[in-house]
Amino acid sequence: MRIGIVGYGSVGKALHQLIYEKAWDFKNKYGLVLQVVFVCDSSGCVYKESGISPPETLKVKEAGKSLSSNFRVEPVIDTIKKGLVDVAVECTPANFVDAEPAYTHIIEALRSGSNVITTNKGPMALYMPTILEEAESRGLVVLYSGTVGGGTPFIYFADNALRGNKIISFRGILNGTSNFVLSKVINEGSSIEAAISEAKRLGIAEADPTSDLNGTDSAAKLVILLNHVFEDKYTLKDVEISGIENGIPNVDSSHTVKLIASSTPKPKVSLEVISKNDPLNVDGTYNAVEFNVEELGNVYLIGKGAGGKETAGAVMRDLVELKNRLQVQYFRKSYMRAL
Amino acid sequence: MRIGIVGYGSVGKALHQLIYEKAWDFKNKYGLVLQVVFVCDSSGCVYKESGISPPETLKVKEAGKSLSSNFRVEPVIDTIKKGLVDVAVECTPANFVDAEPAYTHIIEALRSGSNVITTNKGPMALYMPTILEEAESRGLVVLYSGTVGGGTPFIYFADNALRGNKIISFRGILNGTSNFVLSKVINEGSSIEAAISEAKRLGIAEADPTSDLNGTDSAAKLVILLNHVFEDKYTLKDVEISGIENGIPNVDSSHTVKLIASSTPKPKVSLEVISKNDPLNVDGTYNAVEFNVEELGNVYLIGKGAGGKETAGAVMRDLVELKNRLQVQYFRKSYMRAL
Repeated sequence: MRIGIVGYGSVGKALHQLIYEKAWDFKNKYGLVLQVVFVCDSSGCVYKESGISPPETLKVKEAGKSLSSNFRVEPVIDTIKKGLVDVAVECTPANFVDAEPAYTHIIEALRSGSNVITTNKGPMALYMPTILEEAESRGLVVLYSGTVGGGTPFIYFADNALRGNKIISFRGILNGTSNFVLSKVINEGSSIEAAISEAKRLGIAEADPTSDLNGTDSAAKLVILLNHVFEDKYTLKDVEISGIENGIPNVDSSHTVKLIASSTPKPKVSLEVISKNDPLNVDGTYNAVEFNVEELGNVYLIGKGAGGKETAGAVMRDLVELKNRLQVQYFRKSYMRAL
Repeated sequence: MRIGIVGYGSVGKALHQLIYEKAWDFKNKYGLVLQVVFVCDSSGCVYKESGISPPETLKVKEAGKSLSSNFRVEPVIDTIKKGLVDVAVECTPANFVDAEPAYTHIIEALRSGSNVITTNKGPMALYMPTILEEAESRGLVVLYSGTVGGGTPFIYFADNALRGNKIISFRGILNGTSNFVLSKVINEGSSIEAAISEAKRLGIAEADPTSDLNGTDSAAKLVILLNHVFEDKYTLKDVEISGIENGIPNVDSSHTVKLIASSTPKPKVSLEVISKNDPLNVDGTYNAVEFNVEELGNVYLIGKGAGGKETAGAVMRDLVELKNRLQVQYFRKSYMRAL
């Protein structure tokens, strides 16, 4: 399977390294030969027909330089449009204004016949129904398990682990940064500002954590889960969003406050007071989702949120899923031809 | 898909009802036509070529009578041996001594060409490697997601949701009855005896909860998860087992005691002191498993344990999985023939 990595930050670099480390395992266990044939940062794409081993390109990035400083590159969109790969992995940073340039990367990859894996929430939060239709009309696959809880497989849990059961609703903590800040404030009496500073110092919060703290990041993940679980056609504007910017309510010692994204009665992200005994009361950067399942009652999935390595791990799950989907398509087509 | 239900207690009855309620959904959503053509209790099997609707047989059981009192029955093993169904669902009660008659039911179903779904832990705890080999040698499928956490899809989580990632180890609470008793004793200061009585009164503990309390039930589930996750060949005798029968250690207010099944360093079930902040600190009848995943760190799955309806829900997941497996086999075979 020929892979192109678009975006060469913490996720892209970790993914390149992980594909290299796991190549032997994947070949043995899944019959899947992985080969990275292009990597792109904002300066352009490096393409090598025979595959790019991570040391070649990582060395340059670790020296703080762009790919164009050491390699012959061409503009990102030109490389994508050539349709050189079986799957283009979009892992540039998210923006929730117009989701560019990631949205164009994804659409052009599909138009050139490549399947897509995205860890970038922006395009999915704003245009998921359009993207999935574009893929479906071409018989291509778009996978995105890294967009929601890279470290915790919420997407495949809802999809594969609960297949045959009916999810009625779900709610949970979908952002680790805001959960870290809330835990500090409630459990340790920090000020919001001090908690944010500490999160930045520990590398938990980005330089600008606005979308983590105001609920937008949680809302983006809520949209993706809603569309995935209920095969619905929500976008970010359908979610009522508030975050921790208006202050955190006081609670007694048996309760706590969490930033909760809920699917019902209408899609919403807001601060909620919950019991300390609630399984959603997870501290630090943990994410947690409660699925209410018709046959099973409440089921909880808890784990780490995003991080370069964790999100790269999610892409590895998507690569196996992609292989399985393509294989079923292939056998089915061969069968139809044989009729 | 023609189904036979072997064992008509709380799981078998709930399953029959659920298949009936979900028939339309399953046809639409999964292209799966479900038809129960035989049901068996200990008095024998009722077979009806055109399908048995639940009211016919449930009415008799609700009146406290055996199937043979109202229907013409034949011995269970005779019906199984006829190979009348695509899948035989084994849901008789578990025993951990010789796992009979369930083990014979499963082996004979496979020998007669039926796939098997079992919610009965006994045969899997004692003979899982043998059963899976018998199935594989015949190109048949054995599924068992109801044996471990019927209400919480541990099996499919480990399998499908984490596919592409590597599980290094796991540990957790796999028995709701003992967890209920421990929670009562530690949190409310009950005596063990009083807690057991209350569990019986609430229908949480069976009349004889010995295997729940002495760790055998947890160990059986540990064996099944071990074989499933690591494709290993463990049986119950490989597990070091102790339960709550030797008393429960005292702990300070920031700790608690749980009956934990661990995969490593060697398979073991024992009381462990854990921090109250540990995500495994779930109360009541909840089950919880911590998976340590190479790419993701710790991921926790929490939900209800067994119960008639929940375990029947697990069988519904298995039916969809079975259909998918058979379909891939079918397309693959057609493809091979067309070559």
